Amino acid sequence: MKFFQTTYRVIYGDVDSMKMAYYANYLRWFEIGRSELIRHLGLPYAEIEAMGYLLPVTEAFCKYSKSARYDDILLINTGVGFVRKASMRFDYRILNQENDLLVQGYTVHACLDQEGKLVRIPESVFALLGKWE
Amino acid sequence: MKFFQTTYRVIYGDVDSMKMAYYANYLRWFEIGRSELIRHLGLPYAEIEAMGYLLPVTEAFCKYSKSARYDDILLINTGVGFVRKASMRFDYRILNQENDLLVQGYTVHACLDQEGKLVRIPESVFALLGKWE
Amino acid sequence: MKFFQTTYRVIYGDVDSMKMAYYANYLRWFEIGRSELIRHLGLPYAEIEAMGYLLPVTEAFCKYSKSARYDDILLINTGVGFVRKASMRFDYRILNQENDLLVQGYTVHACLDQEGKLVRIPESVFALLGKWE
Amino acid sequence: MKFFQTTYRVIYGDVDSMKMAYYANYLRWFEIGRSELIRHLGLPYAEIEAMGYLLPVTEAFCKYSKSARYDDILLINTGVGFVRKASMRFDYRILNQENDLLVQGYTVHACLDQEGKLVRIPESVFALLGKWE
Repeated sequence: MKFFQTTYRVIYGDVDSMKMAYYANYLRWFEIGRSELIRHLGLPYAEIEAMGYLLPVTEAFCKYSKSARYDDILLINTGVGFVRKASMRFDYRILNQENDLLVQGYTVHACLDQEGKLVRIPESVFALLGKWE
Repeated sequence: MKFFQTTYRVIYGDVDSMKMAYYANYLRWFEIGRSELIRHLGLPYAEIEAMGYLLPVTEAFCKYSKSARYDDILLINTGVGFVRKASMRFDYRILNQENDLLVQGYTVHACLDQEGKLVRIPESVFALLGKWE
Repeated sequence: MKFFQTTYRVIYGDVDSMKMAYYANYLRWFEIGRSELIRHLGLPYAEIEAMGYLLPVTEAFCKYSKSARYDDILLINTGVGFVRKASMRFDYRILNQENDLLVQGYTVHACLDQEGKLVRIPESVFALLGKWE
Repeated sequence: MKFFQTTYRVIYGDVDSMKMAYYANYLRWFEIGRSELIRHLGLPYAEIEAMGYLLPVTEAFCKYSKSARYDDILLINTGVGFVRKASMRFDYRILNQENDLLVQGYTVHACLDQEGKLVRIPESVFALLGKWE
C-alpha cells in the first residue's frame, strides 16, 4: 500500500495520566492524515463539501501497539484501502520518530449528498482516490 | 450571587500526565454549567437558537486554584454576572466533592442574529436571566 | 448480552460543523460506559489502579449508524464481551433518547502491571466481570 | 512585544456546529504556542520537567474577536508577558492566514517542584525567558 505521510507533535492536552496519549486522540490524528492525503491529491475536503458531498465515517478501527507520549513527533501514514461506488476506506499507520509502530487502523466513509442520502462518489474524487489505491 | 449547581464525573480523557485535568477542559465544564442553568430557567439553548439567536463567547477567564483529578465528581456552580442589552456574563465556581474550590471564572457572550450581526437580547431571555442575576 | 446503562448529555464541545457529534467522542463515551459499569460492579477503576494494575485499550472499534446531535441525552449501554486470563472486551451500544441506535462498538483491554508487563487479571476483577459476561 | 510564530491547521474535530472553532480549543493552541516558543529558546518543556519543575497554569484569559474555521491555518504568536521569581506569563495572538486577529489572550504559570511546592524559577529558564520578555 502507498502511504502519504504527515506529522503531528503530541501536546499535554493529548495525553492522559498514564503518560500516554488518550486512545480517542488517534481518531483525530487519522482525520489529519486523510485530510492531508486528499489535499495532496489536489482535492481538499472543503472543496468536496462545496461540491455538495459529505463523507461521514461509518466505521473506525484502531489497534494500539505502543503508546504515543508527550512531545513525540508522530508520523501519520495514510493510504486508500478501497474506493467503491458509494464508500471508501482509508488505512492508517502511526509511528513515532524512532519508527516504532504505535497504531494501525482504518476508517470507512459513506458518500452522502446534502440531504443525507447515499449517493455515488463524484467522478473526480473517485479517479483521484483510485489512482492512490 | 445565586448559583445553579450541576455535576460532572472526570474521566481519563480529561486528565493529563500530571494526573490533573487539562486546563482547557474547564471551559467545557463551564459550557455544561451555563447550559444546565438556562435549561433550568426554562429556556434550553437549542430553543434560543431556534428563535434565531446565537450567543457566542467573546471572553473567557479561568483562575485555577486546585486541580480536578481522575474520577472526581465536580460541582459546577453557575450564576449570572450581568445581563445587558446585547451581552451577558456567566460566572462559574467549580468545586470537588470535598468542597475544595478548584476553579473560578467567567464567560462573556454577545447576542447575534443568524447573519452574525449584534442584536438586542430577546425579551424572554433577558427577563429570565435578569431574575437570576 | 447484559448491558449496564448510563447517560451523557451532548454539549457544543462534542459536535462538529455537520451538527453531528465528532466521531472520536464516542470513544470518550465508551470510557464513561465501562467506568460506570465497573463502578456498579463494586470495583471503580481507580481501585484497580491502586491494586497495581492497568487496563490499557489494545483495540477499539465503532460502527456509526446515526449521529448524536447537540443536546441529545445519550443512553450508553455497556456489556462484557469476554474476560480471559490477561485480556477482556467491553461491548457498547449507544442510543439516543428516542431509542435510535447510534453507535455500536467494543474495546479490548490488556492487563498490565506497573512495569507494563502483561499479567493475569486479578482474581477479584476476573470474578466480577465473569459474572456479568 | 516580541512574538514567536508557529502554525496549526484546524480540523473537523476542532469546530462546533456554528462552523467555528470551539472556544476551549484556543487554550490547546496556546499550549502549542508556548511549547514551541520555549523549544525555540533551547529548553523544551520535557527538559524543564526532567529538571524537577512543573509550570502549571494558574490563570488563563481569551478575548475572541473572530472565529477560526475549518481548514484555516492558524498563526499562533507567543510572547513572554513577564517572568518573576516564581511565576511567568505568556501572551498570545492567534491570526488566520488572511492576517485577521482571531483571539488574544494570556496564561499565567506558577513554578512548582515535584512535591507541588511553589519554588523559584530555575536560573537557566529565568534567563532564557528574560531575554525574550
